[in-house]
Amino acid sequence: MHLEGQQSILAALTARSRKVDLILIKANAHLERYQKVLEEAERQSISVKQVAAEELDEIAHGKTHGGLVALCGRRKLAGLAALKEILQVKSGNPLLLVLEGVEDVQHLGYVLRSAEALGAHAVLLKKHLWTFDETALSRTSSGAFERVPLLKFAEASDMRVLSKFQVALWGCIAGVKRTMYEIDLRQPIALAVGGEKRGLSGKLRQECDGFIRIPMAPGSASSLSLTHAACLVLGEAARQRFASLHQSPSPE
Amino acid sequence: MHLEGQQSILAALTARSRKVDLILIKANAHLERYQKVLEEAERQSISVKQVAAEELDEIAHGKTHGGLVALCGRRKLAGLAALKEILQVKSGNPLLLVLEGVEDVQHLGYVLRSAEALGAHAVLLKKHLWTFDETALSRTSSGAFERVPLLKFAEASDMRVLSKFQVALWGCIAGVKRTMYEIDLRQPIALAVGGEKRGLSGKLRQECDGFIRIPMAPGSASSLSLTHAACLVLGEAARQRFASLHQSPSPE
Repeated sequence: MHLEGQQSILAALTARSRKVDLILIKANAHLERYQKVLEEAERQSISVKQVAAEELDEIAHGKTHGGLVALCGRRKLAGLAALKEILQVKSGNPLLLVLEGVEDVQHLGYVLRSAEALGAHAVLLKKHLWTFDETALSRTSSGAFERVPLLKFAEASDMRVLSKFQVALWGCIAGVKRTMYEIDLRQPIALAVGGEKRGLSGKLRQECDGFIRIPMAPGSASSLSLTHAACLVLGEAARQRFASLHQSPSPE
Repeated sequence: MHLEGQQSILAALTARSRKVDLILIKANAHLERYQKVLEEAERQSISVKQVAAEELDEIAHGKTHGGLVALCGRRKLAGLAALKEILQVKSGNPLLLVLEGVEDVQHLGYVLRSAEALGAHAVLLKKHLWTFDETALSRTSSGAFERVPLLKFAEASDMRVLSKFQVALWGCIAGVKRTMYEIDLRQPIALAVGGEKRGLSGKLRQECDGFIRIPMAPGSASSLSLTHAACLVLGEAARQRFASLHQSPSPE
């Protein structure tokens, strides 16, 4: 398979998320543009070759590769068994995002990007989109796919492993009494967000330790898209966790 | 033009956002499924016709219309001149979202949806995506496009009208000192978010009264997509504005 564009490729190289076999650069390109990639390739003894632009267009999905394509191996997606190791490496109380019913690779990409930016330790993905297009995912996530641990699971009951790590599972659903402002998201926590069509499944709800909602503006007729719901609940977790780093106007 | 699916059509009918000429329902469908639409159509004396499923497929973009299509007029997009009227009708201090560089109709749809859910009074859109596909926009916004005032503007200097309404314009950009937690978002405010590629333009920055950033997790290499950035900054505004309705764990 391949990765395209500077962000994805640099992310893969620096995160060492996969084997990179060969880097292709458009012939006659200004090499300074690719300096960071070239330096990292040299450090890791990865071959770099200049080829005609048409050749890159053929390999890549479109013409947005920016003159840079890497031929590489697949990203090894771990199962939940990898959670222990991940939680040992990362500092701070675990913050996990559990996703169910994601159907669009672009959506998953944006969520991974925000999950990383907002400090999630890992994203747990329920079987649905396992055969996604990795090139597109790396690209839409701006390389976050290369860095954020993405663990897949098959059954809602697999979530029981969380209790081993003292991680509580909270389901985000509409219509419940408690809001995300009312719980302490600085604790070890996994936040479950469900698909657009059906929300969280009954089976996953059964595994939850509690439920929270994202408050809407009074009188609003609207709901939130899956990725925006995930973004907001992680954003509130980030606020609570890093709030001591910032000042916050206190509510009236 | 047409709208498809129950959510878009019901939103258009109840918001009276556009002229609806005729509603088409799939022949032999269970009419109870469309009860709300049918009731509203009767109230507004709009004709309803049952047609073959193939006819709906032909009119609609795909097969996800759910057996319901409405033939209708275009949504009248207002310019900034409409702002006065909008701010008079809506209660509370103005909360506006200013978007620059949106290129994807689906992204715009999700932002409108979240803008409504989080209490924005209007969304101001800089010329770029003026000829968007309204059917898709209504659909991806779950009907929010029919309800949220979407005002277009051509030049960054058009933003000067905001001061007439005592609305301060804050630009959301990376790398500035102040975070969104540090300003009082309960004041009359317009929040400007720029496109993925270039961020906020120099010209729009010149019109800003100040700048804020969305804090990232310490050490994060990531950035946020345009729609997630807009979502998070509106989410913080919503938290501050409606926080008295909820309890919030106080930061340590």
